[in-house]
Amino acid sequence: MQIKLILAGYGNVGKEFVKLIHEKASCIQKEYGLELLLAGIIGRDVKLYRPEGLYTDTLLALGDGSAALHRYIEQHPVYNENMEGHVLIESTPTNIESGEPGKQYILQAIENGMDIVSISKGALVTSWKEISEAARVANVSIRYSGATAAALPTLDIGQFSLAGCKIKRIEGILNGTTNYILTKMYEDNTSYEEALQQAQSKGIAETNPVLDVSGMDSACKLLLLSNSLLHTEYTLEDMSMKGIENVSKQDIQKAKKQGKQIKLLARASTDDDGKVQLEVQPSAVDLNHSLAGVTGTEKGITFYTDTMGSVTSIGGASNPRGAAAAALKDVINLYRKDRI
Amino acid sequence: MQIKLILAGYGNVGKEFVKLIHEKASCIQKEYGLELLLAGIIGRDVKLYRPEGLYTDTLLALGDGSAALHRYIEQHPVYNENMEGHVLIESTPTNIESGEPGKQYILQAIENGMDIVSISKGALVTSWKEISEAARVANVSIRYSGATAAALPTLDIGQFSLAGCKIKRIEGILNGTTNYILTKMYEDNTSYEEALQQAQSKGIAETNPVLDVSGMDSACKLLLLSNSLLHTEYTLEDMSMKGIENVSKQDIQKAKKQGKQIKLLARASTDDDGKVQLEVQPSAVDLNHSLAGVTGTEKGITFYTDTMGSVTSIGGASNPRGAAAAALKDVINLYRKDRI
Repeated sequence: MQIKLILAGYGNVGKEFVKLIHEKASCIQKEYGLELLLAGIIGRDVKLYRPEGLYTDTLLALGDGSAALHRYIEQHPVYNENMEGHVLIESTPTNIESGEPGKQYILQAIENGMDIVSISKGALVTSWKEISEAARVANVSIRYSGATAAALPTLDIGQFSLAGCKIKRIEGILNGTTNYILTKMYEDNTSYEEALQQAQSKGIAETNPVLDVSGMDSACKLLLLSNSLLHTEYTLEDMSMKGIENVSKQDIQKAKKQGKQIKLLARASTDDDGKVQLEVQPSAVDLNHSLAGVTGTEKGITFYTDTMGSVTSIGGASNPRGAAAAALKDVINLYRKDRI
Repeated sequence: MQIKLILAGYGNVGKEFVKLIHEKASCIQKEYGLELLLAGIIGRDVKLYRPEGLYTDTLLALGDGSAALHRYIEQHPVYNENMEGHVLIESTPTNIESGEPGKQYILQAIENGMDIVSISKGALVTSWKEISEAARVANVSIRYSGATAAALPTLDIGQFSLAGCKIKRIEGILNGTTNYILTKMYEDNTSYEEALQQAQSKGIAETNPVLDVSGMDSACKLLLLSNSLLHTEYTLEDMSMKGIENVSKQDIQKAKKQGKQIKLLARASTDDDGKVQLEVQPSAVDLNHSLAGVTGTEKGITFYTDTMGSVTSIGGASNPRGAAAAALKDVINLYRKDRI
């Protein structure tokens, strides 16, 4: 079965996705019965489209970003007609204000009957209700492992490995940058500022780290998981959120003396009235907590269930290739022909 | 969609499975669009069959095992005709010598076009090649989460969460009893014999613990995972296996002094010639090893991949209800009508 892919966004993750398709096409054909064909790319200011498939080997040799897309056009003709495909891979920069440009790409693709695999969080965070309703009406699927901790299985475990369970609580360390900073503060007794600076010098934290350290990135991931797995229709406004900016050396040391570590925990729990509460905040966890061993840039998540006890997953490469691999996994699971 | 289930084996896990179907039927209908109907049970010396569904509430009130099945017949008529259903739930006692009686039930069910969800390991361990080939020819599915560490996601992660990855190595602590014994020896500085006795007095180890402590239970689970995820066609004879019977206090203490713990690791790795090697043996692991935090009766598994880094899952209830829930999950994932 041939599956035509349209990719929106050709940044680091988008390019890694193209690389993966290029490298793994024949394995995927053999193992899953799927011929993946990259038919189009929507860049920042240019579009490439060829219904029979783009020349990925050419493209990958032409450098990064929009410039590479422009260079491609100089070598190969592209078509100006409307892009048609089975699935949109949404990999534009995350914009949690408006969700654009991802949102328009997603809604248009749904209208055209395409499934959605999203790596970026913006559109799903700002407009989950609208998008999921549109998908329901059009009878298409949305998967977004890449947006919910990428190579760490989170959505999968909730939907697939825990099928038939009631998920009573979710706790996660969903952001690698803040976990790196807190780990440094714990292990080396450094201040928040020093640890942040180290993270920045290693390229772990961005120059403007606010999305990470404020807890916003974790909050977005938790929100997406809750809306799918706990059937909420929440927005960021329904979430209580506190970042790590004010965690002091003293806080860390005090916790350490009590045999605890401070982690930025994202937590979804159900109160006595059955209402789901979402919060992200620095929390002191015992050393035998299921996520206490999640150190450095690692991430982890624990699901507490009615029949399967607690199930934790930890790890997954925290890099563009890991995020791209998560999107590829979603594509395969949408269409695979092997019997599992 | 109505799914007719035939259950083979009415021991602890089989009965928990019936309880789960009874408790969760309406949730499952609502969430997954599946009407699960228990149409038949094959007991040790008696069969119950009613194409319109057995009366599970009656059955559950009648005690345990074969005796309960006999009592059921006194209250409700059953049919003597051939059992028909969509899926066989194989929950007979594990027999790693011949695989019987599970094997005949499985092969018969496959011949009748039924899918298989297996909780017991015997038939799959002894006769994987024969059974998987029969399933391929009949175009039916086999799932067996319940046989590969039950509520701990293992098969799922390899097949679903890591779709598109190359799995380079698998390491697991796949047996709770031996992990409990080794944890006791590490934490309380007890001998193997003392720790085993404690495990037996708590009902964690069986009176005859040989299947666990010899490494055989772990070996069976590793074999099943390898045959599915690494595409081997191995039997137990292709496996190197060493149990924990000869692990001494001194071994544990020596490892502890080096900052290590001894764990019964089940490992599948690929050698330089691309050949998969399977082994189960007590191994000293660093305290920062991904499975070092797996203590007591817990289980865990780590997959090392090409594109997603390493992914670990830990936990899952180690009891009959957890094993039954794993089988229920498999049934749901075979037939679910919701779009994920």
